[in-house]
Amino acid sequence: MFKKILIANRGEIALRIIRTAREMGIKTVVVYSTADEKSLPVLLADESVCVGPPASTDSYLKVQNVISAALMTGAEAIHPGYGFLAENPDFAEMCRDHGLVFIGPTPESMRELGSKAGGREIAAASRVPTVPGTGVLEDTEAALTAAREIGYPVLLKASAGGGGRGQKVIRSDEEMQKGFSQAQEEARLYFGDPAIIMEKFLEEFRHVEVQVMGDGQGHVIHIGERDCSIQRRNQKLIEEAPSTLPDDLRQEILAAGVRLAKHVNYAGAGTLEFIVDRDGNYYFMEMNTRIQVEHCVSEMISGLDFVRLQIQIAAGEGLHLQQEDVKLQGHAIECRINAEDPDKDFRPAAGKIEDVHFAGGPKTRVDSHVYSGYSIPPHYDSLIGKLIVHDDSREQAIARMKRALGETVIQGPKTTIPLYVKIMDNPFYQQGAVLTNFLKTRMEM
Amino acid sequence: MFKKILIANRGEIALRIIRTAREMGIKTVVVYSTADEKSLPVLLADESVCVGPPASTDSYLKVQNVISAALMTGAEAIHPGYGFLAENPDFAEMCRDHGLVFIGPTPESMRELGSKAGGREIAAASRVPTVPGTGVLEDTEAALTAAREIGYPVLLKASAGGGGRGQKVIRSDEEMQKGFSQAQEEARLYFGDPAIIMEKFLEEFRHVEVQVMGDGQGHVIHIGERDCSIQRRNQKLIEEAPSTLPDDLRQEILAAGVRLAKHVNYAGAGTLEFIVDRDGNYYFMEMNTRIQVEHCVSEMISGLDFVRLQIQIAAGEGLHLQQEDVKLQGHAIECRINAEDPDKDFRPAAGKIEDVHFAGGPKTRVDSHVYSGYSIPPHYDSLIGKLIVHDDSREQAIARMKRALGETVIQGPKTTIPLYVKIMDNPFYQQGAVLTNFLKTRMEM
Repeated sequence: MFKKILIANRGEIALRIIRTAREMGIKTVVVYSTADEKSLPVLLADESVCVGPPASTDSYLKVQNVISAALMTGAEAIHPGYGFLAENPDFAEMCRDHGLVFIGPTPESMRELGSKAGGREIAAASRVPTVPGTGVLEDTEAALTAAREIGYPVLLKASAGGGGRGQKVIRSDEEMQKGFSQAQEEARLYFGDPAIIMEKFLEEFRHVEVQVMGDGQGHVIHIGERDCSIQRRNQKLIEEAPSTLPDDLRQEILAAGVRLAKHVNYAGAGTLEFIVDRDGNYYFMEMNTRIQVEHCVSEMISGLDFVRLQIQIAAGEGLHLQQEDVKLQGHAIECRINAEDPDKDFRPAAGKIEDVHFAGGPKTRVDSHVYSGYSIPPHYDSLIGKLIVHDDSREQAIARMKRALGETVIQGPKTTIPLYVKIMDNPFYQQGAVLTNFLKTRMEM
Repeated sequence: MFKKILIANRGEIALRIIRTAREMGIKTVVVYSTADEKSLPVLLADESVCVGPPASTDSYLKVQNVISAALMTGAEAIHPGYGFLAENPDFAEMCRDHGLVFIGPTPESMRELGSKAGGREIAAASRVPTVPGTGVLEDTEAALTAAREIGYPVLLKASAGGGGRGQKVIRSDEEMQKGFSQAQEEARLYFGDPAIIMEKFLEEFRHVEVQVMGDGQGHVIHIGERDCSIQRRNQKLIEEAPSTLPDDLRQEILAAGVRLAKHVNYAGAGTLEFIVDRDGNYYFMEMNTRIQVEHCVSEMISGLDFVRLQIQIAAGEGLHLQQEDVKLQGHAIECRINAEDPDKDFRPAAGKIEDVHFAGGPKTRVDSHVYSGYSIPPHYDSLIGKLIVHDDSREQAIARMKRALGETVIQGPKTTIPLYVKIMDNPFYQQGAVLTNFLKTRMEM
């Protein structure tokens, strides 16, 4: 097992990794930008290395600085968390070139799965349905032909994009005329690659994702699925496990996820995102080749520690769990506590947290890097903590979440907590009738 | 189910009960003394009623005030927590007389089990071994005769005592000559009853206790056992579940606990305390007819909510769990965070908590009623919170507890946290070789 690992991330996920590493007897080095000097991960890690100024392109994304920090401190492996360098195959390759273990899949499978076009091919090869769509489109003409065949509305997506960014809905030939080259230009600008694919656009659906673990030797298991349909601007707010899908459909999607991950000989933790329409059709969207923000709900229903499994697999200890060892119990819900004003279109609310008091008690988990007196830097995302609860049934988990939200006090910035209280009280939410347009159609916002 | 209950307690256990009641949709009324006006339970309960000045004899123990508060607010039942009125059969009876449900066993079984002498009789009748000892002793002559038969050292115990108070070790005839009438006098003074019993005194042993739940109709199950051997002055500091006893001995003790509780047709949550000597002999000591401080470790390994079960049983919904439904998984440890200075003989350290930051993350539970800026009143016990962790094995649970203790920050009063860090690092503790004299013999204090 590793003696020391470097954590190439910040915030709650850096702390999450420190926790498990410490419990495994592994020393931790955390990198940080000057804006995060007083963050909890920096205070709690065994060592910390400043890798640059606040802008993430100059610090957390500065590959050379991160690699140097690992070599300098004698770390044997790098855990990338999520975001930043987590899905960058070049970084993973550079780790390998420098004799460092990248805690994640191989650069090859990241490349294969990383592009939307590649993902569609792999899905087809492993008999997993995808939304009707295309490979990379050459020009506007090709896009118009494809759109007429698929039927409007369609979605133009940057093949190199991810996390809901680089997407554009097109509803007519007219919109396509100017929209396509615009999308290419934006893709080139944001992701360094102008390649655009097209998909049938579904107005409303569930977002369901399958958690898998693989050993890179062909052994892949799933650890259930999650429903992450409550989103704003394609960003998840509330996640739960299991989904409320009928069991036969659930099993079909889980099997599809495992089949696809096996096809690429997947190593480590990964998530296969699916959309499920009202008629129970499901389509593979993309695979996230890393730990997810919302992994905690699956940890709570399975009793497993995903970061521990990731580290064990990366250290060559393999994956000793068989599918039948995974026992899922009860229902878990996560609320992402964001420093945002939900009444003002989720405008980020950076600033000082004057006082924070998190919920406690049975089956109530808090993953947060903030503390009383901590100032939220404006340079990064607005996630300041995750509140996760578990109980026997979905109904009881909702009651527990409501109780736990009621105990949570954050003085200073506005947060999404009041919105979550309303959602827990919402009868549509309580019935499990949740699609991705929930906030627009089911809540008076 | 009840619509409203009154909580006749304070501190973390009052909050614990509020949490479950809220999740069950039951309104809560909490009583408080003027010293607890700004405590978290008072802030979080639906209603609160001041029942008197700080001295608990004038507030939390003031039966009339508590009953009046329940009647006045329309509460249908009273949860007594632990301590205060929890094991007072007269109070339970008065609840009944006023049409209030006492969330606990009947006054009759509390009376039966409440005296040490009664407990010994019930144990004998249900074939559960007790420490060699006597019934109530008339005078010094009788005590001398009994002591010579049992063999010194012996323990004189107030029959009406409990929680380790009212006990005196006697090592010779000489000590008995003056000690016996002194013990009678103290028992009369402290417990209003001079009755003294004698037991063989064991210098070192394990404290193992069996958690039971009964429906009052003869159905009793156990929810495993706990080891609570790490104590100071007979007060528990660290508890864990399960114990490290060999499995056959564990099963024997669990069966003995269930047998005894069935014998009295026990209703609700109860704990049977046993001592286990080095040779694996076990002896029943007493039954605590209420929820215990350390119930959380059993909740974590069973996934059950004991307060919910208590309320369901008291509301007449019965106990629907069969023994085979109780699945115990992994290992849980609790550290009682006391505002005390462990380097100064655990002297209480009341005062203001300038800042508090509790641990979070996977399988880490915090039950605490304190917050930043809260002043610990000097009138009650020094428990300011409980840190409980769960993991697959005892070894991993210890690693997790160490990690969680390291994250916990309490600025202001001294606490027992630094002591617990040392205990988690102690090789004797890690081996599970823990007897009640651990702190004296295994730690450099």
